[in-house]
Amino acid sequence: MLDLKKDFPILNQTVNDEPLVYLDNAATTQKPTQVLDAVRHYYDFDNANVHRGVHTLAERATADYEAGREKVRKFINAGSTKEVLFTRGTTTGLNWIARWAEEILKPGDEILISVMEHHSNVVPWQQAATKSGAKLKFVYLKEGELDMDDLKAKLTDKTKFVSLAHVSNVLGVINPIKAIAQLAHEHGAYMVVDGAQSTPHMAIDVQDLDADFFAFSGHKMAGPTGIGVLYGKEEILNQMSPVEFGGEMIDFVYESHSTWSELPWKFEAGTPNIAGGIGLGAAVDYLSAIGMEQIHQHEAELIDYVMPKLRAIPGLTIYGPQDNHKRGGVIAFNLDGLHPHDVATALDMEGVAVRAGHHCAQPLLSYLDVSATARASFYIYNSKADCDKLVDAILKTKEFFGV
Amino acid sequence: MLDLKKDFPILNQTVNDEPLVYLDNAATTQKPTQVLDAVRHYYDFDNANVHRGVHTLAERATADYEAGREKVRKFINAGSTKEVLFTRGTTTGLNWIARWAEEILKPGDEILISVMEHHSNVVPWQQAATKSGAKLKFVYLKEGELDMDDLKAKLTDKTKFVSLAHVSNVLGVINPIKAIAQLAHEHGAYMVVDGAQSTPHMAIDVQDLDADFFAFSGHKMAGPTGIGVLYGKEEILNQMSPVEFGGEMIDFVYESHSTWSELPWKFEAGTPNIAGGIGLGAAVDYLSAIGMEQIHQHEAELIDYVMPKLRAIPGLTIYGPQDNHKRGGVIAFNLDGLHPHDVATALDMEGVAVRAGHHCAQPLLSYLDVSATARASFYIYNSKADCDKLVDAILKTKEFFGV
Repeated sequence: MLDLKKDFPILNQTVNDEPLVYLDNAATTQKPTQVLDAVRHYYDFDNANVHRGVHTLAERATADYEAGREKVRKFINAGSTKEVLFTRGTTTGLNWIARWAEEILKPGDEILISVMEHHSNVVPWQQAATKSGAKLKFVYLKEGELDMDDLKAKLTDKTKFVSLAHVSNVLGVINPIKAIAQLAHEHGAYMVVDGAQSTPHMAIDVQDLDADFFAFSGHKMAGPTGIGVLYGKEEILNQMSPVEFGGEMIDFVYESHSTWSELPWKFEAGTPNIAGGIGLGAAVDYLSAIGMEQIHQHEAELIDYVMPKLRAIPGLTIYGPQDNHKRGGVIAFNLDGLHPHDVATALDMEGVAVRAGHHCAQPLLSYLDVSATARASFYIYNSKADCDKLVDAILKTKEFFGV
Repeated sequence: MLDLKKDFPILNQTVNDEPLVYLDNAATTQKPTQVLDAVRHYYDFDNANVHRGVHTLAERATADYEAGREKVRKFINAGSTKEVLFTRGTTTGLNWIARWAEEILKPGDEILISVMEHHSNVVPWQQAATKSGAKLKFVYLKEGELDMDDLKAKLTDKTKFVSLAHVSNVLGVINPIKAIAQLAHEHGAYMVVDGAQSTPHMAIDVQDLDADFFAFSGHKMAGPTGIGVLYGKEEILNQMSPVEFGGEMIDFVYESHSTWSELPWKFEAGTPNIAGGIGLGAAVDYLSAIGMEQIHQHEAELIDYVMPKLRAIPGLTIYGPQDNHKRGGVIAFNLDGLHPHDVATALDMEGVAVRAGHHCAQPLLSYLDVSATARASFYIYNSKADCDKLVDAILKTKEFFGV
């Protein structure tokens, strides 16, 4: 098992007089000292605006920032840094694709997503459908997983975009993206992947997945807030119009019109989140040094350890697949007779931080016929002791409320 | 004069064996220890995702982030935090407005900008004009300033948007926004202000200016990269559609459609740049403690000190108004017989960081009939000694190149 708590000083605190057990990692993860120091080093020694300067600090800042892009490229095995666009986060990346879809979709075309999608992979497609006249279709579930039969039935030559979460932020289920991408391509559709919940937790190879687009966020993978990545295949990005307009992304601006810069800068208008790109690069260094296989294995061991203990609690419902090996480190649950907000508040009294709510997945919760759930989610610094604390706190909560 | 170098450790370094004199502040400013410590404190003690959590860290993070918004509100004297939208920067804010303009503009309508605008206040309007059929018109210059007669001649009842820089990032000129906003409103047009180069340097009162929109960036005002603000009048923001779609900005997501959250969150899809908002709040605290009048006065003294020395250099052309009191701390210049990139490179050999290029203002440079300029720009930590170093370095450069 990994033992990394020393790299995360924030975890060394008490909450409500109890040692903090942070289990809200699907919302955002903590950042190791190594990442925070890299960002601070940038600001304390190299800070300048990038790409446009000839002075020493500007050259150092540009080199630092573009090194971050190259680290990300290698991390997801993209073929070129031209395919690695820095965004504000997953949401921005998915919006950019849907904005382009809106331009090229026609009435009669179809977009296929699933009922387990995060709002950021639902609402942009609703907009694209409404504005283009295309139809948005949903794939439903079977035993807590994507219903592949339903997917195959709904995926036709009318389908132009298939957009799915790699890992559900509620069910925890890992979707078989590689197989689905192959099906999508057989029907001539683009495969878009919301990698927000997978990239922090497992090795990603966008070429092996054959994803046309793959979006993720830095803050969920030990990086800073305000930075994310949209990977796109170069030949597709070349066809796309930029979404934001301004400095950096232009080649030449005349009064009447403008021409665009090369990839990846065509999509990056204005001063970027320079420190964010550098911090994300440092996060990639940190995770890579541990090894993504080891990280996945660590979380799988935690799930294997905690799941039987949770399933043994009377009145506790767990959503998602039964088979632990089909899921990442996300466990959404409810306790009979208690609102999940009360569960989360009670756990917080024990120092255990879990989320409660709709997890930005209201279509899924409507489908599951619940208004909210509690959710515990794990990361590299969590331990079996954290699992024990979670189980103990749930048992105490049941006792306190008499449910 | 202010003496703040101690708060900026980055300035205490040598570049090419010379003490660093950082004069590229119009591109990005340095960040004081106080701001960097505030961001670090957030990550070391309070980091969690905002708005959606009930656990202690999530509540602290939300309070910290929304406190940043309130600090910004007070700093620009907005009436309500509903009017303070966090963006990635000025570029994003201006794009959001132009995107809305695209929806409401009709053929025959007109947009009025000036030839001194930054690309971020040109290209989005070109797009809005092209897509809506509206006409984009440019106001030209008179003696290095906005030609108010030209503006009055071109501002008609056809004009729906007037969008201008508060301070030019090349000419340094401060535009009379309050008077222009009154003219715009007399013709029923919205007044949009690019405040990227004014907000860091002078007291801003959006209500006194009567701006309908006012955009600026954190990184140019001692704050972190990747965060900015779009101010908009509440009644106008209420009419606008959101631009990005996803979590946070929704009220309810059904499979078929979605409803939006209240202001300001309607515009803030996905996990925001939480540390950025907190850092910007800390920057506002830092600048406010100095006093924006004092900051403006400090820069005015530097300009009054350095300008006669620069004007005395043979073959040095300075762009912008003759009257120092009409400009902020930006000085774009060229040396006869030398390309500005060579000037900037030579100054860098002396430790003096200036920018060279088109400064994302190609329409202006075409109008001025130059392809590039060098640019020195000042901030709160610069001193008269820095001015002397700039002048000395320019004289050395002339001597070295024999021009």
